[in-house]
Amino acid sequence: MTHVLILGASGMLGRKLCREVQSALNASTLTLADVMAPDIPGGVPADTRARAVDITDGAALDELIAEKPNIIFHLAAIVSGEAEADFEKGYRINLDGTRYLFVAIRLSGASTDYCPRVVFSSSLAVFGGPYPEQVPDSFLAAPQNSYGAQKAMSELLLADYSRRRIFDGVGLRLPTICVRPGAPNKAASGFFSNIIREPLQGKPALLPVPDTLRAWLASPRAAVKNLLLAAELDTSQLGARRTFNLPGLSVTVAEQIEALRDVAGAAAVGLIERQHDPSVEDIVSAWPARFDAALATALGFQADASFASIISNFLEDDME
Amino acid sequence: MTHVLILGASGMLGRKLCREVQSALNASTLTLADVMAPDIPGGVPADTRARAVDITDGAALDELIAEKPNIIFHLAAIVSGEAEADFEKGYRINLDGTRYLFVAIRLSGASTDYCPRVVFSSSLAVFGGPYPEQVPDSFLAAPQNSYGAQKAMSELLLADYSRRRIFDGVGLRLPTICVRPGAPNKAASGFFSNIIREPLQGKPALLPVPDTLRAWLASPRAAVKNLLLAAELDTSQLGARRTFNLPGLSVTVAEQIEALRDVAGAAAVGLIERQHDPSVEDIVSAWPARFDAALATALGFQADASFASIISNFLEDDME
Repeated sequence: MTHVLILGASGMLGRKLCREVQSALNASTLTLADVMAPDIPGGVPADTRARAVDITDGAALDELIAEKPNIIFHLAAIVSGEAEADFEKGYRINLDGTRYLFVAIRLSGASTDYCPRVVFSSSLAVFGGPYPEQVPDSFLAAPQNSYGAQKAMSELLLADYSRRRIFDGVGLRLPTICVRPGAPNKAASGFFSNIIREPLQGKPALLPVPDTLRAWLASPRAAVKNLLLAAELDTSQLGARRTFNLPGLSVTVAEQIEALRDVAGAAAVGLIERQHDPSVEDIVSAWPARFDAALATALGFQADASFASIISNFLEDDME
Repeated sequence: MTHVLILGASGMLGRKLCREVQSALNASTLTLADVMAPDIPGGVPADTRARAVDITDGAALDELIAEKPNIIFHLAAIVSGEAEADFEKGYRINLDGTRYLFVAIRLSGASTDYCPRVVFSSSLAVFGGPYPEQVPDSFLAAPQNSYGAQKAMSELLLADYSRRRIFDGVGLRLPTICVRPGAPNKAASGFFSNIIREPLQGKPALLPVPDTLRAWLASPRAAVKNLLLAAELDTSQLGARRTFNLPGLSVTVAEQIEALRDVAGAAAVGLIERQHDPSVEDIVSAWPARFDAALATALGFQADASFASIISNFLEDDME
């Protein structure tokens, strides 16, 4: 009887993840929570509940956690661009919200042996340069934007609460997700997806950075697979470091564009319009683009095989 | 007209620091704040005020900051042993207290160009193994106790607020302070001082760890000197990484004891009683004992010359 809770269930990864928990995690109960009650899609357990939960409302989290879900995916956050634009809101949702969740688990488990698995989606935005050629697992978190600071602080909470056995936490620093389906969001990294998704659908897309910019990418499919692996990971392999870098694909924008050309031809590539935006470049160029994700690889986490396969995944899973 | 505020002014470093700010920082006004109003010692500016401030009381911090001190030393914290024993209190004082201070500065400066220097005392407790032979400036913070987690989170806040130019922050990861004067406190690292201070004063001291345990130490005099340097540092040399490791002295307990023997003879050494305490050893053995403090050294921060000189400092400054 596994009860899975997904916080941030209306987000792009949440919507994909919820369809996998029955088969991958043998979930019999699923709670989908987001600031507005999420739609319940097909392919979920019969006992699936949708809840509207403001993550900055500690009492609402207490109620959710009182149902004692065994596996909690904490994917709720506002994105980098929004956290940078609204300083208070970023800390309130991305830091305080995480803490309210963790405190709710602590209070709920205080007199019982309740100790759920918590899978937290962190980000390579926790890093700041200068970087070595490849960023090792031991590299410090020195974020250069508020979103990264909030994620890095949440990672520290995750580790300390796990060390105290309040819950059993695993944090994954997700690569930049590409190709994101649907409408553009406020993430500074959105263009990595826009320049592929929009031209594939015959629409124009803005490219705000130089072709030479390199990024560490993963498809939604790879991200979901790795989140599911984290939900069942043997955490005795982790020691005190509960958050780690995931494997990804290191590609330049030029390499992305060439892969698009191979799949969809010059006409698609012609839909990409270069319009430099220094504020976007400042944020995304501060993120490292090459990792030695040795720990995650040893634990069985996987990257996409190539950018061509990332495009194939999009065409199979999300093409409208 | 420099106004210096010391939060945590009744602590060991605060009491030493306040006597130096007039000459070292040309302070004309000094505010000493702690949970109980601090005693005002000699050697301070004529305009010195003592304030009782609970750092978890945001409104009280707002009042302090409304006076717009130019240099703020944030030394207020509960120590590692206490933060480990009382989970909630540790987060409330060591994390929330720091945040209330930073928010008070943000709100106070929102409509003005107020941007004070904030000097924050952090700790090598932010680190957790496995360690390389020497810990570099780029090594990650992976704390293995709650105190370290709270300090690491405060460092992240310091960096993000500084990047936003809300204040101009410098964080110093102080080595373990030795020889601490006065009565033992609840810090797990207290024995490093106890085994020197107590025998020098003819009293017994417990040694809870093996002689082979190595630590990264600094005298109170070196710590105060480095805090004063941080108050006037040209922060354009720092970039985004606002907190760094200070130089220190890497010594084993055995080397400490040999230095004590040289100064005070076998009778003093005989006052050290070995009484193994795994809970203390667990905490202190998790801290790294050798650093390459390249950045701080390049910026002019200094370590003590030898453990013998650390003992001399104690005899000159603090022997009762």
